[in-house]
Amino acid sequence: MRWWGWGEDSESFPLSEAALALLSTELDLTVGSGRCPATIADVALPEGSLGGAARESLTAAVGARHVREDRDARIHHAAGRGYPDLVRLRAGRLDRAPDAVVSPGDGVALRAALDACGRHSVAVVPFGGGTSVVGGVEPMKGVHSAVVALDLTRMDRLLELDGDSLTATFEPGIMGPAVERELAGHGLTLGHLPQSFEFSTVGGWVATRSAGQISTSVGRIDDLVQSVRVEAPAGSVRTLDVPASAAGPDLRQLFVGSEGTLGVISAATLRLRRASHRHHYEGWSFRSFEEGTDALRALAQADAAPDVARLSDRAETELSLALAPAVGRSMRLGRACLHGRGHDRGCVAVIGFEGGDEVSRRRGHAGELLRNARGLALGQRPGAAWAQGRFRAPYLRDALLDHGAMVETFETATSWSRLGALHEAVSAALREALEARGTPPLVLCHVSHLYRSGASLYFTCIARQERGAELDQWAASKRAVGDAIVAAGATISHHHGVGRDHMPWMDAEVGGLGIELLQAAKQQLDPHGLMNPGKLIPAGPSMPGR
Amino acid sequence: MRWWGWGEDSESFPLSEAALALLSTELDLTVGSGRCPATIADVALPEGSLGGAARESLTAAVGARHVREDRDARIHHAAGRGYPDLVRLRAGRLDRAPDAVVSPGDGVALRAALDACGRHSVAVVPFGGGTSVVGGVEPMKGVHSAVVALDLTRMDRLLELDGDSLTATFEPGIMGPAVERELAGHGLTLGHLPQSFEFSTVGGWVATRSAGQISTSVGRIDDLVQSVRVEAPAGSVRTLDVPASAAGPDLRQLFVGSEGTLGVISAATLRLRRASHRHHYEGWSFRSFEEGTDALRALAQADAAPDVARLSDRAETELSLALAPAVGRSMRLGRACLHGRGHDRGCVAVIGFEGGDEVSRRRGHAGELLRNARGLALGQRPGAAWAQGRFRAPYLRDALLDHGAMVETFETATSWSRLGALHEAVSAALREALEARGTPPLVLCHVSHLYRSGASLYFTCIARQERGAELDQWAASKRAVGDAIVAAGATISHHHGVGRDHMPWMDAEVGGLGIELLQAAKQQLDPHGLMNPGKLIPAGPSMPGR
Repeated sequence: MRWWGWGEDSESFPLSEAALALLSTELDLTVGSGRCPATIADVALPEGSLGGAARESLTAAVGARHVREDRDARIHHAAGRGYPDLVRLRAGRLDRAPDAVVSPGDGVALRAALDACGRHSVAVVPFGGGTSVVGGVEPMKGVHSAVVALDLTRMDRLLELDGDSLTATFEPGIMGPAVERELAGHGLTLGHLPQSFEFSTVGGWVATRSAGQISTSVGRIDDLVQSVRVEAPAGSVRTLDVPASAAGPDLRQLFVGSEGTLGVISAATLRLRRASHRHHYEGWSFRSFEEGTDALRALAQADAAPDVARLSDRAETELSLALAPAVGRSMRLGRACLHGRGHDRGCVAVIGFEGGDEVSRRRGHAGELLRNARGLALGQRPGAAWAQGRFRAPYLRDALLDHGAMVETFETATSWSRLGALHEAVSAALREALEARGTPPLVLCHVSHLYRSGASLYFTCIARQERGAELDQWAASKRAVGDAIVAAGATISHHHGVGRDHMPWMDAEVGGLGIELLQAAKQQLDPHGLMNPGKLIPAGPSMPGR
Repeated sequence: MRWWGWGEDSESFPLSEAALALLSTELDLTVGSGRCPATIADVALPEGSLGGAARESLTAAVGARHVREDRDARIHHAAGRGYPDLVRLRAGRLDRAPDAVVSPGDGVALRAALDACGRHSVAVVPFGGGTSVVGGVEPMKGVHSAVVALDLTRMDRLLELDGDSLTATFEPGIMGPAVERELAGHGLTLGHLPQSFEFSTVGGWVATRSAGQISTSVGRIDDLVQSVRVEAPAGSVRTLDVPASAAGPDLRQLFVGSEGTLGVISAATLRLRRASHRHHYEGWSFRSFEEGTDALRALAQADAAPDVARLSDRAETELSLALAPAVGRSMRLGRACLHGRGHDRGCVAVIGFEGGDEVSRRRGHAGELLRNARGLALGQRPGAAWAQGRFRAPYLRDALLDHGAMVETFETATSWSRLGALHEAVSAALREALEARGTPPLVLCHVSHLYRSGASLYFTCIARQERGAELDQWAASKRAVGDAIVAAGATISHHHGVGRDHMPWMDAEVGGLGIELLQAAKQQLDPHGLMNPGKLIPAGPSMPGR
């Protein structure tokens, strides 16, 4: 991945002229005014502080070639891919970087590396694809003398495939496309497709409790994980490889979402399905966001949820139409017809099905329910457009930064009965926070994952960057959103995780005693606090009421 | 519930003449030779040891009427409903009984009662329906001066119903039929139907991570719990009421299955569905258990699993036919036809569907897959017979004890690829253990819950009681089964929980560090060890390799 942004150097998706014109008008930003990425040679880095004895132990653990202290390695492991990361990287200003990048090749080397870090008081940041958008891989030392990024991408093997039980055990560092390549040869698929799919790893998905684009049907990674193996400073844990158990609390669900703070996920057994051969995506229009969410709720509660269900609110629908020319043209034609039916300022949903022969039946059933809920079918074009660009959003973010735009996403989930109020509260909080700074934003939102009892909301916020105060501007919006989410009884994260950015709301999420429980688990597994310091679990006594 | 066995006094299901004849031949037992239940007046009970100060505090907490120290209350809360419990109760020999039965009427009284127990060092056994079959409600004092049963059945209200989100929040002490009555008025159902349904509670289901008869489709209680509130000695915990979250480890899954050792579940928000109006149960025959499990696996992996799927092995099929006259007659007729097709010593499965209009489509799809897997449809009669007797097994157990039979059930789960070996290993272990004692058993088994990656096995073992050594005989069989399960890579419990009986295998289940994690959680929530001492979590340092 390019050191300052998303994707490989060969790939980029510049904004169209139309998009630039629209954004410069709406957000009052100057095209081309973005800060250009500094060259990697210009990046200012803190001096490395790995001691000689630690270096020697780590070298013994993983081999000299796999303990790297060069600038290139350190910069590539210095940040995740959240908006504040991108601001810092583009400015060539890194206050933190790992003192070394340590890359074990197997579980034995991983264990030895952890033990070496324990002996020499070196903090450890497990590092897969490095795509965290919540500061989850920020190299913090805690109370230790040094910090290493534990790069797991050399541990990228399929360890075991159980074709009868449809499970596969992977090492943590294998990335999305390789997972699917390995399985495709057996006619199987995992079907876990987060936005970061191309660059994120099995270990990262498990550690951050991630969700994919078709998790509504396939299940989140928490559902797909049958068992995990974890290497912690205090020892190894392996949960039992069985489909279900009543033998006490589910410790698997303590490690899923533990974000490297309890130990390193060294292997995960995941539940598979037979590869699907049919794909069908279609667009539907609803007169309002509320009518749309009612329709999706009807699908979810009738066990008729599609694999992909993304309902954009009015603002996101408008902007998508303006920015996506192909869809826009066809839509503009269609709109003349829709006008009389009250859909001229409607909300568009992408409804997608992936599977085998049952796809046509499921489409038919869902279509019937959507029509009953006053949805209008728009045909396959809007769906196809979404499918084609399904992993493209992070590239567009870079393009927006090129032109001086702040762009950040916020995601949450709540019950159906609270969804409308949550949508309004977060949108209002963002507008208020950024208008107060003189940078009124575009706030877009879509429903992205359906459950019988509720759904997730995914917000995108675009505003003119506040030059020189980019991070303050971001922090103000983040604070406003977090407070609004918590006040609305929603979760601080549906699939991005906690990292550093969501820690202030962990007390609201799990309560003071909940935090103490997490602290107790950490104390047991990582008594010296080596693992990913400063993430997920607030230190010290909890702060009731925040 | 009757003090010495299952059900109300008005209900009993004596064995038929045919069944008695068959059992007396097969097991060499003498009809009517069972130990009769002693009258309640004859039961020997240890002296109560609740101190005056503790009594006063508890009375202040819940009211004098709700702190009972009479024999009747103590005997009714002295044991669960496992086989060893029944042996002890029928012998009128209770070495342990709670010193008092404390019944809070709401969350405030519950909190006050817990605090009173903390002040006076009184151990607390949360008690719902008291139907644990693994010693989960055995009144153990631990290091404390006294132990109370905390009877939660006065806390039996529906606290909140969210009709949009299809969730309901219940107090812990409401029993199965009352749950469904409350919901039926709104056209809703929970659909959690464990064998103990008539006498078990929401709190008990959540605390023991239970599964119901239609959990294959509806999900286990772990799937149905959206959030929990817990009162622990150290304070209160409430998990967030949202459909999904990526905000760190899932603490909800630490409380589900915690069996009263971490605190008392004071409320649970459960996920509902619309009440179903169609039921269809049918019988299918397979030439062998292996062909049957292959067929069920095909259903589960094609997302075509029925709501009920119970495949009996050859021994269970034979005995069911012999003992259930109605089914037997029709089967005997049918068998003549089946003989030529290799099904004369087949395995029968009950395949059941419950739902709305989609039932006929699902039946059609499942039927096609079952036929492809060489299943033979037997029509609705075997299914209807099962449905009619679906909650009857515990009554039959009492009837068997009346005639001097030991009867115990064992349940586990594993991956599809290990299921056949598990079936053979557990059956062989039971036969070997009991033959060695001169009481060769009947060992019956069925698959009871399907998952994409595996299934559960439910064993029933019937043998002549070893008069005077009933508990030794039971312990030998339990040991043999537990060791065989663990050696086969299966879980020590799929839905009965751990209690006392499965504790010896917790190390194999979660490992030494896993046990230490549970101990750390307990230390945080219950620092003085008041909560359900001697259950679930082994005390002291773990014993690697058992």
